[in-house]
Amino acid sequence: MAGGIGSRFWPMSRTSHPKQFLDILGTGKTLLQQTYDRFLKICPKENIYIVTNESYKALVHEQLKNISDSNVLYEPSRKNTAPCVAYASYKINKINPKANIVVAPSDHLILKEQTFVKAIKSCFKKVASEDCLMTLGIKPTRPDTGYGYIQFKESEVKEDDLRIKKVKTFTEKPDLEMAKFFLQSGDFLWNAGIFIWNVKAIIQAFEKYLPEMHELFKAGNKKYGSSGEAAFIKAVYAECKNISIDYGVLEKADNVYVRSSSIGWSDLGTWGSLYGHIVKDDSQNAIIGKNVMMYDSKNCIVNVPKEKLVVLQGLNDYIVVESDNILLVCRKEDEQQIKTFVNDLKIRKGDKFV
Amino acid sequence: MAGGIGSRFWPMSRTSHPKQFLDILGTGKTLLQQTYDRFLKICPKENIYIVTNESYKALVHEQLKNISDSNVLYEPSRKNTAPCVAYASYKINKINPKANIVVAPSDHLILKEQTFVKAIKSCFKKVASEDCLMTLGIKPTRPDTGYGYIQFKESEVKEDDLRIKKVKTFTEKPDLEMAKFFLQSGDFLWNAGIFIWNVKAIIQAFEKYLPEMHELFKAGNKKYGSSGEAAFIKAVYAECKNISIDYGVLEKADNVYVRSSSIGWSDLGTWGSLYGHIVKDDSQNAIIGKNVMMYDSKNCIVNVPKEKLVVLQGLNDYIVVESDNILLVCRKEDEQQIKTFVNDLKIRKGDKFV
Repeated sequence: MAGGIGSRFWPMSRTSHPKQFLDILGTGKTLLQQTYDRFLKICPKENIYIVTNESYKALVHEQLKNISDSNVLYEPSRKNTAPCVAYASYKINKINPKANIVVAPSDHLILKEQTFVKAIKSCFKKVASEDCLMTLGIKPTRPDTGYGYIQFKESEVKEDDLRIKKVKTFTEKPDLEMAKFFLQSGDFLWNAGIFIWNVKAIIQAFEKYLPEMHELFKAGNKKYGSSGEAAFIKAVYAECKNISIDYGVLEKADNVYVRSSSIGWSDLGTWGSLYGHIVKDDSQNAIIGKNVMMYDSKNCIVNVPKEKLVVLQGLNDYIVVESDNILLVCRKEDEQQIKTFVNDLKIRKGDKFV
Repeated sequence: MAGGIGSRFWPMSRTSHPKQFLDILGTGKTLLQQTYDRFLKICPKENIYIVTNESYKALVHEQLKNISDSNVLYEPSRKNTAPCVAYASYKINKINPKANIVVAPSDHLILKEQTFVKAIKSCFKKVASEDCLMTLGIKPTRPDTGYGYIQFKESEVKEDDLRIKKVKTFTEKPDLEMAKFFLQSGDFLWNAGIFIWNVKAIIQAFEKYLPEMHELFKAGNKKYGSSGEAAFIKAVYAECKNISIDYGVLEKADNVYVRSSSIGWSDLGTWGSLYGHIVKDDSQNAIIGKNVMMYDSKNCIVNVPKEKLVVLQGLNDYIVVESDNILLVCRKEDEQQIKTFVNDLKIRKGDKFV
């Protein structure tokens, strides 16, 4: 899934160049490239499909030189994750109705790749012989109110992989009190948004929980892979609901399992969540940039172009980002305000800077 | 005098483009242009001479389109103000040995131009008939430790202009205790570095207090205005002392007068001194830039290029300057550290950014 716009990472992420296409960690690879390379350890490249907005066609091919255009699925509009998953699922179903599928965001960080591959393979083993829906769960380390939480219970039947549990409830973005309770209870995991199932199980789930969407995508069985696919998808997207796969399917289904996995995960949803994953200097400043000089400053996150000279003095706990001739300086604790800045900008200056 | 490099205004002022060549107040005119226009109210353009470093030749002519190159005096090296004043004085002496001269920095702010013109004309009246050295004094408004202070006493003979006093002592950059005492006493003025004298008086003063410099420049009487002038000046500058006119002449002379003048003066020596002269928004932010958005910020001074979008949040009492792809963020109260940053930069990166 590579269609999001990640507006909380403004001004680095822009509508024309969102987060998955950025080397936001300064590693030399964009998040999309990192994700693609990670999945090459799981399946051959012919089996990797990218679903993205059609406006990002050039970016995808620029960053993934070896990908065939038939492996890129273009969405004509933004309709959240359920239509994205449906499009890929019904198309894959035509190619191979016995396929096992892993669905993953392209803009997350996964530090422990070996463990990740092991986790996915274990889930594949389960879904290969059982029509269920699986998700990866992350043991929470703080009462984060921005994540979805999954409450688990023991499976009815003993699992081969003891890390696999039956899902009891989903809770999206709890308040702080509730998040603290979840953290303490030990029965809750963060929902990493990485799903595993076989194609039959997910199509059955669409039929049951999102029947209108099922009818829309099912009707195109003859179109997938043909010259009429784009026009068909355009018509379907104009019709179909804007809804997430979590809310539309997983929260309603009763055959959902979670595998607790320690994969060094972050959704990199905010500058603050990025801060934890960048090397710090002695003053706990996380700096991406070749010519940054810090004086009397600590706990800052700085991300500026290589060629830019930046001298910062007297800043504690600030975000300093420069991208494409836009400069943002903002207190780390106030980073949720970035969405406000972007909205104000739209009102005052139009779409030029967003 | 337009040869300085104003390093405290880094990164706007650079060795290659110092403060006098900048529109640092956002008025549409550089400080040099403002100064030149101010003196056009005092004398015809033929009588205005610019002394600058030879590396600024193109900048001077770019900014002062109508100036004749024979009115620009090029210094081959930086030797402080005494050689600068000497060069101009001996050259003017050859053209008109009865000339009255006003010497002024090209990078100061003078808000009350009418009052300034009146002050200069009154000083001209005195020096036209008396071989003395005059300077403009500014009534101090704060115990600034960065300025020179002039202690005055009543003149021996009653002056026509009661604002003219005899100078008793000069004190360069006092400590804070002393500056507070100066402020309270009422007998001290800031030295604005604007001097008035007749050419005979200043040459007599060089002869008496800087005799070696006098001999050097006097020896070129035949060269001034000839094709050999530049080569002669190059040789003289290689020989002559690096010293200020204040220290070399005025502090030693006993015929110095000061005229107390309320001309809305600032030497614009620091970002802080600039802050007081720019229009503020409701949060006391002084902003130069077309696309600057401030949130939860006050008392800042922001100076960024017109086309640059800048969003600042949570900054109180900061300097934020961007120029030529260099960004500086610094607490206003720590602005004296800017010289340290520039020195560190020279050590780490060479002359590229200074």
